[in-house]
Amino acid sequence: MKDIYIADLAQFDEGKLFDGFFLVLAKQQRSTKTNKPYLNLILGDKTGQLECRIWEPSDPRIAKDFDKGDIVKARGCVSRFDDRLQMKIDQLRLALSAEVDKTDLLPSTTHDVAALWDELQASVESMTNADLKQLLTTILADPAVSVAYREAPAARQLHHAWLGGLLEHVVSLLNLADRVAVHYPLLDRDLLLTGVVLHDIGKVRELSWGIGFDYTVEGILLGHIQMGIDMVEKAIASQPNFPDRLRTLVLHLILSHHGKLEFGSPKLPMIPEAIVLNFVDDLDAKMQAVASEFEKSAREGKGPDELTGKVWSLDNRQLLNTKRWLGETKSAE
Amino acid sequence: MKDIYIADLAQFDEGKLFDGFFLVLAKQQRSTKTNKPYLNLILGDKTGQLECRIWEPSDPRIAKDFDKGDIVKARGCVSRFDDRLQMKIDQLRLALSAEVDKTDLLPSTTHDVAALWDELQASVESMTNADLKQLLTTILADPAVSVAYREAPAARQLHHAWLGGLLEHVVSLLNLADRVAVHYPLLDRDLLLTGVVLHDIGKVRELSWGIGFDYTVEGILLGHIQMGIDMVEKAIASQPNFPDRLRTLVLHLILSHHGKLEFGSPKLPMIPEAIVLNFVDDLDAKMQAVASEFEKSAREGKGPDELTGKVWSLDNRQLLNTKRWLGETKSAE
Amino acid sequence: MKDIYIADLAQFDEGKLFDGFFLVLAKQQRSTKTNKPYLNLILGDKTGQLECRIWEPSDPRIAKDFDKGDIVKARGCVSRFDDRLQMKIDQLRLALSAEVDKTDLLPSTTHDVAALWDELQASVESMTNADLKQLLTTILADPAVSVAYREAPAARQLHHAWLGGLLEHVVSLLNLADRVAVHYPLLDRDLLLTGVVLHDIGKVRELSWGIGFDYTVEGILLGHIQMGIDMVEKAIASQPNFPDRLRTLVLHLILSHHGKLEFGSPKLPMIPEAIVLNFVDDLDAKMQAVASEFEKSAREGKGPDELTGKVWSLDNRQLLNTKRWLGETKSAE
Amino acid sequence: MKDIYIADLAQFDEGKLFDGFFLVLAKQQRSTKTNKPYLNLILGDKTGQLECRIWEPSDPRIAKDFDKGDIVKARGCVSRFDDRLQMKIDQLRLALSAEVDKTDLLPSTTHDVAALWDELQASVESMTNADLKQLLTTILADPAVSVAYREAPAARQLHHAWLGGLLEHVVSLLNLADRVAVHYPLLDRDLLLTGVVLHDIGKVRELSWGIGFDYTVEGILLGHIQMGIDMVEKAIASQPNFPDRLRTLVLHLILSHHGKLEFGSPKLPMIPEAIVLNFVDDLDAKMQAVASEFEKSAREGKGPDELTGKVWSLDNRQLLNTKRWLGETKSAE
Amino acid sequence: MKDIYIADLAQFDEGKLFDGFFLVLAKQQRSTKTNKPYLNLILGDKTGQLECRIWEPSDPRIAKDFDKGDIVKARGCVSRFDDRLQMKIDQLRLALSAEVDKTDLLPSTTHDVAALWDELQASVESMTNADLKQLLTTILADPAVSVAYREAPAARQLHHAWLGGLLEHVVSLLNLADRVAVHYPLLDRDLLLTGVVLHDIGKVRELSWGIGFDYTVEGILLGHIQMGIDMVEKAIASQPNFPDRLRTLVLHLILSHHGKLEFGSPKLPMIPEAIVLNFVDDLDAKMQAVASEFEKSAREGKGPDELTGKVWSLDNRQLLNTKRWLGETKSAE
Amino acid sequence: MKDIYIADLAQFDEGKLFDGFFLVLAKQQRSTKTNKPYLNLILGDKTGQLECRIWEPSDPRIAKDFDKGDIVKARGCVSRFDDRLQMKIDQLRLALSAEVDKTDLLPSTTHDVAALWDELQASVESMTNADLKQLLTTILADPAVSVAYREAPAARQLHHAWLGGLLEHVVSLLNLADRVAVHYPLLDRDLLLTGVVLHDIGKVRELSWGIGFDYTVEGILLGHIQMGIDMVEKAIASQPNFPDRLRTLVLHLILSHHGKLEFGSPKLPMIPEAIVLNFVDDLDAKMQAVASEFEKSAREGKGPDELTGKVWSLDNRQLLNTKRWLGETKSAE
Repeated sequence: MKDIYIADLAQFDEGKLFDGFFLVLAKQQRSTKTNKPYLNLILGDKTGQLECRIWEPSDPRIAKDFDKGDIVKARGCVSRFDDRLQMKIDQLRLALSAEVDKTDLLPSTTHDVAALWDELQASVESMTNADLKQLLTTILADPAVSVAYREAPAARQLHHAWLGGLLEHVVSLLNLADRVAVHYPLLDRDLLLTGVVLHDIGKVRELSWGIGFDYTVEGILLGHIQMGIDMVEKAIASQPNFPDRLRTLVLHLILSHHGKLEFGSPKLPMIPEAIVLNFVDDLDAKMQAVASEFEKSAREGKGPDELTGKVWSLDNRQLLNTKRWLGETKSAE
Repeated sequence: MKDIYIADLAQFDEGKLFDGFFLVLAKQQRSTKTNKPYLNLILGDKTGQLECRIWEPSDPRIAKDFDKGDIVKARGCVSRFDDRLQMKIDQLRLALSAEVDKTDLLPSTTHDVAALWDELQASVESMTNADLKQLLTTILADPAVSVAYREAPAARQLHHAWLGGLLEHVVSLLNLADRVAVHYPLLDRDLLLTGVVLHDIGKVRELSWGIGFDYTVEGILLGHIQMGIDMVEKAIASQPNFPDRLRTLVLHLILSHHGKLEFGSPKLPMIPEAIVLNFVDDLDAKMQAVASEFEKSAREGKGPDELTGKVWSLDNRQLLNTKRWLGETKSAE
Repeated sequence: MKDIYIADLAQFDEGKLFDGFFLVLAKQQRSTKTNKPYLNLILGDKTGQLECRIWEPSDPRIAKDFDKGDIVKARGCVSRFDDRLQMKIDQLRLALSAEVDKTDLLPSTTHDVAALWDELQASVESMTNADLKQLLTTILADPAVSVAYREAPAARQLHHAWLGGLLEHVVSLLNLADRVAVHYPLLDRDLLLTGVVLHDIGKVRELSWGIGFDYTVEGILLGHIQMGIDMVEKAIASQPNFPDRLRTLVLHLILSHHGKLEFGSPKLPMIPEAIVLNFVDDLDAKMQAVASEFEKSAREGKGPDELTGKVWSLDNRQLLNTKRWLGETKSAE
Repeated sequence: MKDIYIADLAQFDEGKLFDGFFLVLAKQQRSTKTNKPYLNLILGDKTGQLECRIWEPSDPRIAKDFDKGDIVKARGCVSRFDDRLQMKIDQLRLALSAEVDKTDLLPSTTHDVAALWDELQASVESMTNADLKQLLTTILADPAVSVAYREAPAARQLHHAWLGGLLEHVVSLLNLADRVAVHYPLLDRDLLLTGVVLHDIGKVRELSWGIGFDYTVEGILLGHIQMGIDMVEKAIASQPNFPDRLRTLVLHLILSHHGKLEFGSPKLPMIPEAIVLNFVDDLDAKMQAVASEFEKSAREGKGPDELTGKVWSLDNRQLLNTKRWLGETKSAE
Repeated sequence: MKDIYIADLAQFDEGKLFDGFFLVLAKQQRSTKTNKPYLNLILGDKTGQLECRIWEPSDPRIAKDFDKGDIVKARGCVSRFDDRLQMKIDQLRLALSAEVDKTDLLPSTTHDVAALWDELQASVESMTNADLKQLLTTILADPAVSVAYREAPAARQLHHAWLGGLLEHVVSLLNLADRVAVHYPLLDRDLLLTGVVLHDIGKVRELSWGIGFDYTVEGILLGHIQMGIDMVEKAIASQPNFPDRLRTLVLHLILSHHGKLEFGSPKLPMIPEAIVLNFVDDLDAKMQAVASEFEKSAREGKGPDELTGKVWSLDNRQLLNTKRWLGETKSAE
Repeated sequence: MKDIYIADLAQFDEGKLFDGFFLVLAKQQRSTKTNKPYLNLILGDKTGQLECRIWEPSDPRIAKDFDKGDIVKARGCVSRFDDRLQMKIDQLRLALSAEVDKTDLLPSTTHDVAALWDELQASVESMTNADLKQLLTTILADPAVSVAYREAPAARQLHHAWLGGLLEHVVSLLNLADRVAVHYPLLDRDLLLTGVVLHDIGKVRELSWGIGFDYTVEGILLGHIQMGIDMVEKAIASQPNFPDRLRTLVLHLILSHHGKLEFGSPKLPMIPEAIVLNFVDDLDAKMQAVASEFEKSAREGKGPDELTGKVWSLDNRQLLNTKRWLGETKSAE
């Protein structure tokens, strides 16, 4: 169980010793001006990351066999240089797997993953189209998918992404899509929900989240749209008599969900369900960004009259938290 | 009561006489090659429009005093030229106001306007913010607005627009916005609903719908956003103690509802309610376009395997009616 | 054997009777102004298409059972209306399959398809990477693919496309890519040639060429990139031990060959071979367009000093035939 | 009267004590590595800004009650860190209002504001349209507007903006517009001049210039176009019988003066006066930018053969000072 | 002397014979349905153009030796087909050069060309920089240039262009540039005026105006910017000791006058004079377009309340004639 | 002969003295906090550049007469500040021209310049069009051009550019263009090769490479396209009877070789040779960029599984070195 987090270190007096478990995000050998070798590390946990120095790498208390991606136990103290925090380490060893919980080291959803998974299953259960229901059941029952779907972030950028982010996003979308499906009788609800569950499923392969969040080489060259199509094609191939037209529609939903060619969808949405999927996906991503920006502003101590900084993912616009500005109770945020 | 519509005339034998009430959309004097003057008219009703010729304009059975914008009773027969339908008119007089119902002459909503109006009022009634509620009540109680809001189309293009179109669109949006407001606790529901009711209110002045649908000169020079702001500013001025911040937010919702500068909004949405208003407005417009295209394809006798033509308002993409293609019951369309 | 072509009819005297085999591109029932039903057809062959009228559809000499897509033998004479040619038909029956050669009815390559196919096979044969060679051999040996690959046009637009167009384009590209591969030692020649052979293979399913050239519904919703990926994935699945990395690279070549997201490639070229494939594909398409425009100008009787019309596929620029302008021998064109 | 400016401090020896009046642009409490609290300030005046440290905030010679936006008298000395200038402060108190002149603390126009104001009034006086003249007179006579119009900067960015910048820009435009109005008889001179005087009037509310130059929250959400419209509408409402058409034209001039939707004008200029207003506004802004860049280059010691740096507001182009390059007298710059 | 113009023919009774001089804009041999050859011509004069038919080309009264570009005397009568005017010609011969005035056959400026030329010369005379003055004098004294500069249109499109259009545009610009030069002391007046006189001089070679207005082949391949540079370079080469720097600046003014790369200028304006030249050139072109549109609307009988049609060269916006709308005297238009 | 390079200094112990020849890229006088003057230099050679300090500029061992652009011999030692290398200089004098080889001080091609020049001459020799051959021979025989063509870089940016870069690029293009010319019989080989040799010839004047690589003022204002045209025009003028049409085509090739207006070509390629020239120029530039990025990644120690950083000149995409990833021999890179 981890009890010291990187976010806590800012309050530490210089020189005060502490112990902690961290993920090694980078490791480089360097030399001082007098040509003495030292190690420069970046250590991280779910609350942030920190630059660290090991001035005596040959000290027997410093393990030799650790590398980028390992979890380590480190002892040292903080120092400040030009207002930037650093850490000086004098002891370091590999952590035992029983000692740490991975969710302490990478940011993760604040929701109960098991509950989210149940909601996802309930949505699938509520569908009436036997072929689509069977397709989703097959895919979600695949043990590799089932584990990864619960863990995968929804995107790579640290500030947008956390373990369980994909599942959290999909469950929010299922809920939202269900509300919209009732409003437009034109829509085939089962097809829309199938699109929601599968649209980003390729991300479980496009991204890796062992050491921070990153893209796999295959992910960069093929992308999660193509990788999701591949997973769905294989599941359909295993399902005798899956209707051809339904296959075409499901693949079209995945292909077109970014809504524009320049966003990487090779096809524009051409069926009502694809149009709606693109809208709710975009709206939910933007509303999450808005909520995150408001939290960030609050964390930074901004008052109700101050707008957020310019938000890159929202065309560099600034945002105002309406409820705070109007002086409503904070509980609603 | 009108019983012959322009859409019916295609089935008529050439030479068969008929009577009917029509709106004069255009009137031009021309001469034949032998320098004989004749009149060229465009007559319309809610089902379409038709080119007409009066070869003997000095015939006493042809009224002298009619002009563009009048409703007339005309007698004549159809002829065909190069596969195009024309009408030859031999009698024409101004209609009496008791003889015709304006909604026969311009396309109008298929919904019950009174019921839509009640839904709008109920939405306003459901709000808890006294200032906003009062503001909407004041505006909707203004007799001029109240009549115009029930009649105004939502846009000028004949294929997108009909009498009552604005009200129909707003009521659909209120319903949709209500569903989204529940999903995101961040949202101030009353503010969002206020935005829905007022975002297009300037259209009651930007557009004229006496003779076909058109823009007013002021509408072209100022636009419905500015004209709506003007109406709301006047209502707020009449309401003592309307909070300044609330005024700013309501005006911002109207200003930003097109979502992009290049779509004519001088400000991007910068509050959560404005982001959602722009999304639902856009989604509802697109879903209406989709439904209209599917109806048009069905009218044109296209089969379930044929996509629609390229839809200009949807980036020229073609659309497939999923439910028809999958062979589901037509009732759902 | 067909001996009367649509392009010949312009020289015919009005009223002169003739017989010919044609493809039915469209068939519509209409009525005259006096409500007499007649048939309006569009008949085509490889030289063009023509509007035709059957004024007496109940005549026993007019077959009842023909439809869009059929090949028919028709007898009639030409007439002119407003400088437009029409055909009046008084006899029409379904053609027997022995009577006609499909290549008379749709435009087709002027090259020898068998020779092109041999060149393609020789290119595959010249490769040294056993896995890629096996992959191409497997795909090209599939009887359905092998027939379709020889027939498919490279695109739908009539002026750009002809039977065998895909094969002709690929063989030209193999030749060109081979020259470029020698120039840049960085390039993996086998991978590049594999990309050339497979990049447009999905077109054998995206397009249909039974009746004119058109897109299939699946083709519109998924596109030839996705459909080609599907074909290649199935072939790889059948090939034990096909290296994973090679699979990723081959799929990446197909995905990225349009070179830009806005041209429908979901990924930009990120390996040297993909960059080159995109360039030579684009250059060869443009040089074909240039050659076609020069032929069209010559056909239209333009002199060497006249530029072509504005070419849509080349940003509406006009083109000048250098060699003709400089007075060089025409044989080179 | 202020006698030490921030721009002077670069020449100061380290350690030399001095006194001065400054504006507090920011104030933050921080701690040293040994957890000792200190204050970090940003102080500014019309020549620039500087980071300052108060290492002993509890010293009785340091006032407790000052905050961002206050004007203070500070005593201390400069130090340099990594080539960056800092100031160490050991005494600080609030300034008395009699001690300082606001124009010493924010950059301001080098022109005589009273003279500019007279030019503006003379322009209004020269107009012949009684309604427009009355409108401008009303607005400029409003005490709040009249003070703010003389003080407001034309934009927020420090390098473009100074106290009196709006008035300076408008007077230059009046002069230029008058020259153009003579050249094109199509133009209604009074309407054009009215547009010049009012186009940016909303900036007196969009911007605040108490502490540096910044946007108000209302300014960010509504923008100066909307805020100017509001001011003009109120003035028109107070003017009985102001012609409706004139009102529409004046509002259109304000709405459209940015010239493009993507620059935040919800309407394109659609009358000759609006087209000209947009041109002269844009030209004058660019010529000011050019003059500023030439001054900056001269200040930085660049020779006549050196172009300016890349100018962001001019599409990142570099500029050459023609007259200097040709060796003409400097007096003309 | 020409006394019948194409614009007059619309009033003619069908069958009434008339004689007239016209320019042959196109000539094509065609055949009737019964294979009888006939000629199809397009004849034009400064008021418009008309399609004509010669049904008996072998008639001895029809000259054999005329071609596109010739001026002919034709006799015939008008006929109407489907509301389109045509002319049937029964006599035609080549005109003698003494019989016609070229300015009757192509649209031309309504100004006095000699007076415009004097204004141009006076502007040159007013310059103080001896090198620039000499350069302009040399170029304008070249007999070929001097004739062409007086005749050339400013652009190809018939509605924008007329004989003398280039000179008219340049003289307007000289006047306008002079007003702006006074306003900004930064500007080198002589350099700016030189840019005005030379910026479009390449048009005297890019365009041909013998038969309608068209581009030369060299004009299409090189453009008037390059062709103007060539003319100026030759003149400079003939002028000993022309300063290098001045040459660079003059060439830069020509190169950059379109203001944007995408408008065909290979360089952005980088000196103050080039920035101003681009602005005034653009403003004057737009103001001419506005005036033309207002004249066209008046000609078409539009009322003061009607906006113009969408103007292609002004981003498809519609325009309102302010003075007419406000009811001011028409004389000012 | 230079034996210490800047790239070597990173390995040096702090304080160890060394001597070396360097190019002075910048020289600035500054003062310490205690107002003591010192010199800040940037010295460079073909391997990079370094910031240097002369703390005792009045020391007699420090030359007084050196400036930006000079080559100097400097003695000193390295120091490190905040991980950045600096150099402290205690002796400095101007180098004698015999002491240094310019190619040691600026990056230069790794090819044999004489051999490249022979290849260029051989290409010219292989041409059959006497006029074009004569034109190229004339230009390349001009002593000033001939020297500069061998030295000029192909572009300014240090990572793309080196002495001899232009010649290296042209020879590669000649080779590539020759391969493509064979493939498309439509092409006039001599014209295409002429375009290759001349397209960038203006760079010998647009760029200066005496002190680092930079643009000349004339180069910035006119650009290499215009400057190349000027050189070619002068050569043509000296060649009696050079055909007009050939001149137009050669100039068009130079004008249009960037392929798009927004890339600075005032004309789009409108002849086949210009289309091909633009393609091969673009392809060769991109393949060079790819090769450079792969070398850079290898230098930085990236493994075969790591993609390059985002490449600015390739739309910020990352690249994968296929051959390394597949484990092929490194020799091919």
